[in-house]
Amino acid sequence: MKHTDFIFPADSKKSLKDFDPASSGKYKSKKSAEKDLERGIEKLARIQDLLYAHDQYSVLLIFQAMDAAGKDGTIKHVMSGVNPQGCQVTSFKVPSAEELDHDFLWRCVKQLPERGRIGIFNRSYYEEVLVTRVHPQILQNQKLPDLSKSPEKDPKFWKQRFDDINNFEKYLHNQGTVILKFFLHVSPDEQKKRLLERIADPAKNRKFSIGDVHERALWPKYMEAYEEILKHTSTEVAPWYVIPADKKWFMRTAVSDIIVERLGQLKLHYPLLNKEQKADLLKAKEILDNEGNAK
Amino acid sequence: MKHTDFIFPADSKKSLKDFDPASSGKYKSKKSAEKDLERGIEKLARIQDLLYAHDQYSVLLIFQAMDAAGKDGTIKHVMSGVNPQGCQVTSFKVPSAEELDHDFLWRCVKQLPERGRIGIFNRSYYEEVLVTRVHPQILQNQKLPDLSKSPEKDPKFWKQRFDDINNFEKYLHNQGTVILKFFLHVSPDEQKKRLLERIADPAKNRKFSIGDVHERALWPKYMEAYEEILKHTSTEVAPWYVIPADKKWFMRTAVSDIIVERLGQLKLHYPLLNKEQKADLLKAKEILDNEGNAK
Repeated sequence: MKHTDFIFPADSKKSLKDFDPASSGKYKSKKSAEKDLERGIEKLARIQDLLYAHDQYSVLLIFQAMDAAGKDGTIKHVMSGVNPQGCQVTSFKVPSAEELDHDFLWRCVKQLPERGRIGIFNRSYYEEVLVTRVHPQILQNQKLPDLSKSPEKDPKFWKQRFDDINNFEKYLHNQGTVILKFFLHVSPDEQKKRLLERIADPAKNRKFSIGDVHERALWPKYMEAYEEILKHTSTEVAPWYVIPADKKWFMRTAVSDIIVERLGQLKLHYPLLNKEQKADLLKAKEILDNEGNAK
Repeated sequence: MKHTDFIFPADSKKSLKDFDPASSGKYKSKKSAEKDLERGIEKLARIQDLLYAHDQYSVLLIFQAMDAAGKDGTIKHVMSGVNPQGCQVTSFKVPSAEELDHDFLWRCVKQLPERGRIGIFNRSYYEEVLVTRVHPQILQNQKLPDLSKSPEKDPKFWKQRFDDINNFEKYLHNQGTVILKFFLHVSPDEQKKRLLERIADPAKNRKFSIGDVHERALWPKYMEAYEEILKHTSTEVAPWYVIPADKKWFMRTAVSDIIVERLGQLKLHYPLLNKEQKADLLKAKEILDNEGNAK
């Protein structure tokens, strides 16, 4: 699979309906996809090692999706082979009072990955053009100056947020951050199945929230908001990948493939030493060798 | 191997010389240790899953050692099977100006793991009773009020720091943090071998610093400082484990064994729902089922 197969083309007339959530791409069986995932996990571990040593790029992976689409599971299965020393995951929940006292990017900026690291956002600042769009009353609690009574009805309001996000991501790209954004595209029927499983299975109960059922009732509104996000913020430097999510095994392999392909394109190498550092090595070797002779 | 085999007994008359860095315990071959490590990694992944779901305990793993003893490698090999969503690693370097403007625990407190998570400290606040003890001039830059010219010569000065650390760890324990502290015990001969490898192998060059050779010259002072740490801060709620580190494969298996045994002792379970939550489940099921009938 090529990463370009999954990109939502910027400013296109495509809609989410053109993407089949049940697709399993080239795969005829779960088994062969799982084998490829295993290989992907190994490859990613090797690339991460080099990324860490090279210490110039950082990688930001953003996951957005409806409830039960598989954000947690995908992060777990795709990333469980990496060295945790070079990888950090942040889950963004309802903003705290402190966070609301800042601009909407602030809490995410604090969690950006360092150079050489992979940072994963489980939800992100995209909630600010998503859940706020479906529930515009949230905006009234964000302490925004001179806010009208229905800012959400002003297309400029959202356009400005999209522009701000695009500029922010462009800046991160300019600074050496590789940004990959995944929309895990699940169908309402599959979501229903998974929610019922969470209700039936005591081990999964904790993952269920009555809120998920209420949000589900707003499905068309969410899809509209996601389409707006995809249309306005899938850019060359930070594309959105629409991942079919009805088959978990396909979703995981697709995400793994895309990450491995994109990071494989970076020119990573072990850092080269400058003159001074090379001289230090020789000096150190001499000290250690002489120490040996003195014994 | 039992975790108690590796504990440095509190307030004992033991010295580091009683611990053989080249030990490989019960293992006769590298291969069988590596097999046990593989099993340990799988067990840890399962325990972590439950720890995360249970969401009450947090786990703090502290690694301290001389350069090249194997902190990075041990973290990588023991922890590379866990879900990065539930695990975070922090490497503490020379304190920044901002950090020096605070008490010495401050920068570590900020990085403590949340409930349900494993936090790993690669170096830690123990540097404040270690490198500061070997290089007491560092203390003069720490902006401590009313500091004498040679505070390091006052045993009360260090005793106070040990007490502060012990009280801090006791508090964390009271709050539900499981604290395991690992001293990776490498011999000077093995360190020399590894430093020479880092000089010879271009892929390892970046891990070498001329400073490592200078610090090596202070080996006895470091051992004295470590012994003081072990004697004063190996407590029941936060024991120090002295891990033989000359054989990397043994070190890794030993650390894995200890973590798995200690976390296995916790009474972890999937969270039980309260009445309200159970009612929510039933209500949600009804909503979803009716939705199905309406179609």
